[in-house]
Amino acid sequence: MAIAASPLRPSSAPGPVPGDSYVQSFARGLEVIRSFSAQSPRQTLSEVAARSGLSRAGARRILLTLQTLGYVESDGKHFSLTPRILDLGFAYLSSLPIWNLAEPVMEGLAGDVGESCSAAVLDGTDIVYVLRVSTHKIMSITLGVGSRLPAYCTSMGRVLLAALPEEQALARLKAARPEALTRHTVTDLDALRQKLAHTRKQGWCLVNQELEEGLVSMAAPIHDRSGRTVAALNISGQANRTSAKIMQETMLQPLLQAAQTISRLLAVQGN
Amino acid sequence: MAIAASPLRPSSAPGPVPGDSYVQSFARGLEVIRSFSAQSPRQTLSEVAARSGLSRAGARRILLTLQTLGYVESDGKHFSLTPRILDLGFAYLSSLPIWNLAEPVMEGLAGDVGESCSAAVLDGTDIVYVLRVSTHKIMSITLGVGSRLPAYCTSMGRVLLAALPEEQALARLKAARPEALTRHTVTDLDALRQKLAHTRKQGWCLVNQELEEGLVSMAAPIHDRSGRTVAALNISGQANRTSAKIMQETMLQPLLQAAQTISRLLAVQGN
Repeated sequence: MAIAASPLRPSSAPGPVPGDSYVQSFARGLEVIRSFSAQSPRQTLSEVAARSGLSRAGARRILLTLQTLGYVESDGKHFSLTPRILDLGFAYLSSLPIWNLAEPVMEGLAGDVGESCSAAVLDGTDIVYVLRVSTHKIMSITLGVGSRLPAYCTSMGRVLLAALPEEQALARLKAARPEALTRHTVTDLDALRQKLAHTRKQGWCLVNQELEEGLVSMAAPIHDRSGRTVAALNISGQANRTSAKIMQETMLQPLLQAAQTISRLLAVQGN
Repeated sequence: MAIAASPLRPSSAPGPVPGDSYVQSFARGLEVIRSFSAQSPRQTLSEVAARSGLSRAGARRILLTLQTLGYVESDGKHFSLTPRILDLGFAYLSSLPIWNLAEPVMEGLAGDVGESCSAAVLDGTDIVYVLRVSTHKIMSITLGVGSRLPAYCTSMGRVLLAALPEEQALARLKAARPEALTRHTVTDLDALRQKLAHTRKQGWCLVNQELEEGLVSMAAPIHDRSGRTVAALNISGQANRTSAKIMQETMLQPLLQAAQTISRLLAVQGN
């Protein structure tokens, strides 16, 4: 995403702009961190440079900086991240008061319905998982805290988009450039807008195999004391085990109840 | 920790040194991220400056940079982190081969023994949680991924320290400055060294209420293909429900088996 062109972050904001050299260096440092992944857990200098779009000299400078600060380790040839990276907000965000409150409720829900239960927040055009309680059944998708999925084709994403002012939701749908991930994925902007309106009206959302064949999920909003939607809660299951119809009949009430319980706990805690 | 003086990070390493202005700016940016916590989730400019030891002007520059990059949001007065921060930790977690492999095995183990199960790695004198499968019983300690605990008084910490060359393990024990967290905590360096030797010999470790009254935990190492210990796996429970003796009798074998299974999966994956 081109930051300066984003409709969500006006370029007229005061302070540093993307052209600022300090912002650029910092952004590049964070890009180097993000260049490590399951596909590239250990990288040479050249690999880091290629993946983060930096010169070898630039990548070397940042890697050695990260190494000096203890965020990267190296055997001389390969670089990898250290667990100190988790100090950068991950530990904090994954322990936000809401998640402590929500966890026992979500465990109760997952136990009652026998399916995995997750919570997510919106970031741009994606949802980001902040908590997950899985059942012992092995799912085709393993999603840990911090994982991202597109908002337009997920039940939590639609619940979170539906909570935005309509023009903002539309802008994000457009920016996401929806594509068909399965033969069921709704990608037409008008159809998606109608789905959001429907979700807003009924207060929950069911998505049937639009993200992945066989995966059905249902989500409801979690509100803070002021009524603002702060996160979404979902249940997801396999269509060959639990059809969308059965899921709605048997699991919607427990899901709505759990979302309400968490919202009430949040209000009591003063959030 | 003074980086240049750390015995773990020789100051003779090539590359940038802490006095380098680039390193310093980057370090300060990361410090600003770290200044947000459960105690200070929303901060004013002055609070961020005070907590990160920066001038107001310096803190403002970094906060606006982070805001421009989407890692911080502001209502004009207060600043808070956004879920985009989770990308940085996720890059690290998803780069751990163990992360995806271990989860189903850990869920099986937690289900079998009815207690919570976690995996952690060593960072300096701490262990850092990288995966956790909790049971429905509510624990007094809620530890999310990214949480830290001292290595010297935890079962996973002792397993990980025991895997280091002895003089390195001793150096870390000394650097940790062990203190008595309960009346059971072993703090004497010689006694701790013996505990590590014992752990190394028997291949697992039980810690009985040394971190917190009532908390018992048992850990075993996870090895990569070359036999190097890459993480520790544990089960933890409440002493008033499961005594240390019962835990050892009933849960040691499932724990060792799960650790072996994960190690074997790692080897098969080529790690």
